[in-house]
Amino acid sequence: MGLLSDTLAAIKPVDDNRAEAVQRRLDNKTKPPGSLGRLEELAKRVCLITGEDDPDVSKRAIFVFAGDHGVTDEGVSAYPKVVTAQMVLNFIGGGAGVNVLARHVGADVIVADIGVDHEFTPVEGLRILKVARGTRNMAKGPAMTHEEAVRAVEVGIGLVNEFASKGYGLIGTGDMGIGNTTPSAAIASVFTGLPVELVTGYGTGITDAAFDNKVAVIKKAIEVNGPDPADALDVLAKVGGLEIAGIAGVVLGAAANRIPVVVDGFISTAGALVASELKPEAKGYIIAAHKSVEAGHTAMLDRLGHRPLVDLGMRLGEGTGAALAMGLVDAGVKVLKEMATFEQAGVEGEKIS
Amino acid sequence: MGLLSDTLAAIKPVDDNRAEAVQRRLDNKTKPPGSLGRLEELAKRVCLITGEDDPDVSKRAIFVFAGDHGVTDEGVSAYPKVVTAQMVLNFIGGGAGVNVLARHVGADVIVADIGVDHEFTPVEGLRILKVARGTRNMAKGPAMTHEEAVRAVEVGIGLVNEFASKGYGLIGTGDMGIGNTTPSAAIASVFTGLPVELVTGYGTGITDAAFDNKVAVIKKAIEVNGPDPADALDVLAKVGGLEIAGIAGVVLGAAANRIPVVVDGFISTAGALVASELKPEAKGYIIAAHKSVEAGHTAMLDRLGHRPLVDLGMRLGEGTGAALAMGLVDAGVKVLKEMATFEQAGVEGEKIS
Repeated sequence: MGLLSDTLAAIKPVDDNRAEAVQRRLDNKTKPPGSLGRLEELAKRVCLITGEDDPDVSKRAIFVFAGDHGVTDEGVSAYPKVVTAQMVLNFIGGGAGVNVLARHVGADVIVADIGVDHEFTPVEGLRILKVARGTRNMAKGPAMTHEEAVRAVEVGIGLVNEFASKGYGLIGTGDMGIGNTTPSAAIASVFTGLPVELVTGYGTGITDAAFDNKVAVIKKAIEVNGPDPADALDVLAKVGGLEIAGIAGVVLGAAANRIPVVVDGFISTAGALVASELKPEAKGYIIAAHKSVEAGHTAMLDRLGHRPLVDLGMRLGEGTGAALAMGLVDAGVKVLKEMATFEQAGVEGEKIS
Repeated sequence: MGLLSDTLAAIKPVDDNRAEAVQRRLDNKTKPPGSLGRLEELAKRVCLITGEDDPDVSKRAIFVFAGDHGVTDEGVSAYPKVVTAQMVLNFIGGGAGVNVLARHVGADVIVADIGVDHEFTPVEGLRILKVARGTRNMAKGPAMTHEEAVRAVEVGIGLVNEFASKGYGLIGTGDMGIGNTTPSAAIASVFTGLPVELVTGYGTGITDAAFDNKVAVIKKAIEVNGPDPADALDVLAKVGGLEIAGIAGVVLGAAANRIPVVVDGFISTAGALVASELKPEAKGYIIAAHKSVEAGHTAMLDRLGHRPLVDLGMRLGEGTGAALAMGLVDAGVKVLKEMATFEQAGVEGEKIS
């Protein structure tokens, strides 16, 4: 058995039996029942995922996978491919959006080169786990081989296993890859069955003409490759991306380790969707961070059965939305652990009407 | 001249001239322009409010005003009046929702007894600034005298002036007062002109029968007192509350001191509305924290011209929503101050399409 199949076998459904007990505990805090809304929902979710009464989410990490895309040859992005490698160095330097927001919530940023078309000099803070120097152009054939896709998923699983053993209790996903809204939209279309036009967005900010081209390229890629929606690895290999595969691996690894995984925006949700199509039970371990501006995001979230926590008009990726949402997860857990009960505080909890 | 009139005179419109320069600086950060959405909007807003290129929001405080309401005699709340005083002690003990969430975002909680129907023993952490032992029953006559209303507003202004002089750069509002959704809904109805039914909610969780009674009580209070919507102090005195007045004072004080003020939910927004009806220029200093579950909140926010940052199904008050939103404001400011520029990071910022 390989790491992927072992991991899939290890994923069990979230234990919903504890839900009532956790809600009872929340209802005994000094507030009207349910009045902290989704913070209470988050506290409950983390308890169910971890199986802990007092879950420890103090050690947290955002895994940012970087990969390039052969499909950029088709002019689908507003930025040149070289920006992927440049941004990886920006992550290492601590100056990117995800660095700032991860520091803000006390999360480590783990940067992984899973498929950048550049040979990095080994440097502290960069995990070189390259499966290939980018995907091939999916408009002309499969983006990856089946074996490459599996290896990239296993990179994600391996990282989570490593950090789980170090006591990390909350995980986030992030991505960097010029062109990667294109495979993400392809994945969205294949799994949801929605037309490409409805799940494709403007990415980093392309023109209307470039948007029309992007839609045509995605349609061609689906036509040329004929990905089978019933076979998630087939979809991932044919019209996916290496960083998307890494993210799928993180979601599966988190589920197998019973760690809540905060899924960032459009690209991360494509990865999470691949994971949940491989193993539907993984859905229960996901927390959807934010509503991306990118079209198609909501359709994927609907299929995952998740509602994003915030809608702040963001579309940067990198794990920036996941970072903000981790702050909310932490807040929810603190409500459960730190708020006084009616009895402790000497507050009358009985309603008079 | 008194403190209130001096403060009103000191409030100047926010300086929008700097907006373009701040946006240019944000656009030079390593991200597609605008891709951090409302975080960028927050960074810009704080720069315009403070007039600083690198605003310092590291010292922050949430002012929680507690007051009682004579109108609870009419059975408008699900909890007994004594809970207001009990919750004040819970705030002092650090076990309430606002304490947990304020700690989470590094904000101090300043608890002020502005009108609780209880004589507190002086204790560290409690500011006893009582204007009256609660309001009178507004269903039978004015809740406060004009002079009481002014004094309560000035309590809020005085606190902000004190903390402004200590270098606090970000302020939040909070409330505690059993029955206080009732005067807040009255204020909402009077200023927006909307029928009472449309701006009244279920507060801490009353029954449908109690809701019908609450609507009838608010209608009666407006009928009996005839508050003049063109005279905000008249509205505040006749159908308002002492803690609502304190919050209005905080908003005015923040505007006069050029400090961004994060306005919590339904009750705080009623206070902010009183402030902005007194001095429309105050609106520019407000950041709307979250969308409360309470009916009528959106109508007041619309009148203020603000869109809340998050919608997490919360309805606790106390400043809990303000605390979460302060975390987002801080994140936005960090994006401006900490993110690398394209030049610093050696990333190509020129688009190719």
